[in-house]
Amino acid sequence: MTGKKAVVILSGGLDSTTCMGVGKEAGYELYPISFHYGQRHDREIENAKKVASYFNVTEHKVFSLEFLKEIGGSSLTDQSMEVSQEGVGEDVPNTYVPGRNTIFLSIAASYAEAIGAEKIYVGVSAVDYSGYPDCRPEFIEAMQQTIYQGTNANPAMTIEAPLIDLSKGDTVKLGMKLNVPYHLTTSCYLGGEEACGECDSCRLRLQGFEEAGATDPIKYM
Amino acid sequence: MTGKKAVVILSGGLDSTTCMGVGKEAGYELYPISFHYGQRHDREIENAKKVASYFNVTEHKVFSLEFLKEIGGSSLTDQSMEVSQEGVGEDVPNTYVPGRNTIFLSIAASYAEAIGAEKIYVGVSAVDYSGYPDCRPEFIEAMQQTIYQGTNANPAMTIEAPLIDLSKGDTVKLGMKLNVPYHLTTSCYLGGEEACGECDSCRLRLQGFEEAGATDPIKYM
Repeated sequence: MTGKKAVVILSGGLDSTTCMGVGKEAGYELYPISFHYGQRHDREIENAKKVASYFNVTEHKVFSLEFLKEIGGSSLTDQSMEVSQEGVGEDVPNTYVPGRNTIFLSIAASYAEAIGAEKIYVGVSAVDYSGYPDCRPEFIEAMQQTIYQGTNANPAMTIEAPLIDLSKGDTVKLGMKLNVPYHLTTSCYLGGEEACGECDSCRLRLQGFEEAGATDPIKYM
Repeated sequence: MTGKKAVVILSGGLDSTTCMGVGKEAGYELYPISFHYGQRHDREIENAKKVASYFNVTEHKVFSLEFLKEIGGSSLTDQSMEVSQEGVGEDVPNTYVPGRNTIFLSIAASYAEAIGAEKIYVGVSAVDYSGYPDCRPEFIEAMQQTIYQGTNANPAMTIEAPLIDLSKGDTVKLGMKLNVPYHLTTSCYLGGEEACGECDSCRLRLQGFEEAGATDPIKYM
């Protein structure tokens, strides 16, 4: 352990759990944060807690962002909207939560500054993704500048997005190499005990394991 | 009214209330948002509500950001820390809340995208200010880029910081010209019925009215 701290935005899904493995491998003391933003199901948060305890972290914060439910504009937070299942297409799917990653990263930066962490890990990918604008390298670069300019940390903290150029298959290969506990993770937008296998998130996940030549350890309907 | 919408980050203080006047003058339908972030006193939120109703707005959202109290690191959110009263000096005062404006602006951008607003007004000033890093033009420019890259709004929304180059005196002159209800506002960090007149925020406010050759309509101890 380097004695240095890293904040990890941990959703309890495949990508963010892989980031926990990458941060640990890099020798950081991990400070995961999870967000309760009125997403359709609490399962994610339960999985995030299991992943955090698997990594034996010092502290795991779960922050309530109920205001995102009030803002709405996404099928993930507005129960009256149906979760799109048409696969990744031209338009941004209605599971996009307006500006979500900007909010997550700004809170992560505030927390990192308060605890003296030098890294913020975020599991965005711009290869196999649903087309969300806040998963692209251009966004991460702009957010990095905003954190440099908007915080008083010295040295300034930096964002690490280790999966941004990886396909889902490459992410799974990386995670398996690092013995990441995929059996503790969940990805399905519907949040049932068993994954639906049909929403965009399940499709991308299954594709990843197939590419990696591995079997997904979680249960499907 | 142009039929166009503008989100205004409204704290209930002098600067943000002036921004309400500027947005109204520009013909926007105003959508103020206020944040309850565990600041020392609720007075701000009560004042923000009075200002919002003075401007007869369609909607005034008050979002709870209790997580900022959990993050701590500032005398505004951590009751065990004493509010610095030594005036503006070399170091950033302990009233600085790590990355606060990045969080506020990212939530404003999410809300603006969800309701189709094209402007976000924020009352930061880099002239008479306490040295907070997230009140400077460089920060606003970086945040603007982050909003361009991180949201799906078309046309993209833009940040308006009409006071950024104004002294407190110039801000007060502008507000008086626009008949802004300064009697409904509060600035004091201690949040009493009567302002203390000694904290950094009170000093800057009093200095502003003096420069503008006007009398501050609120009560002081």
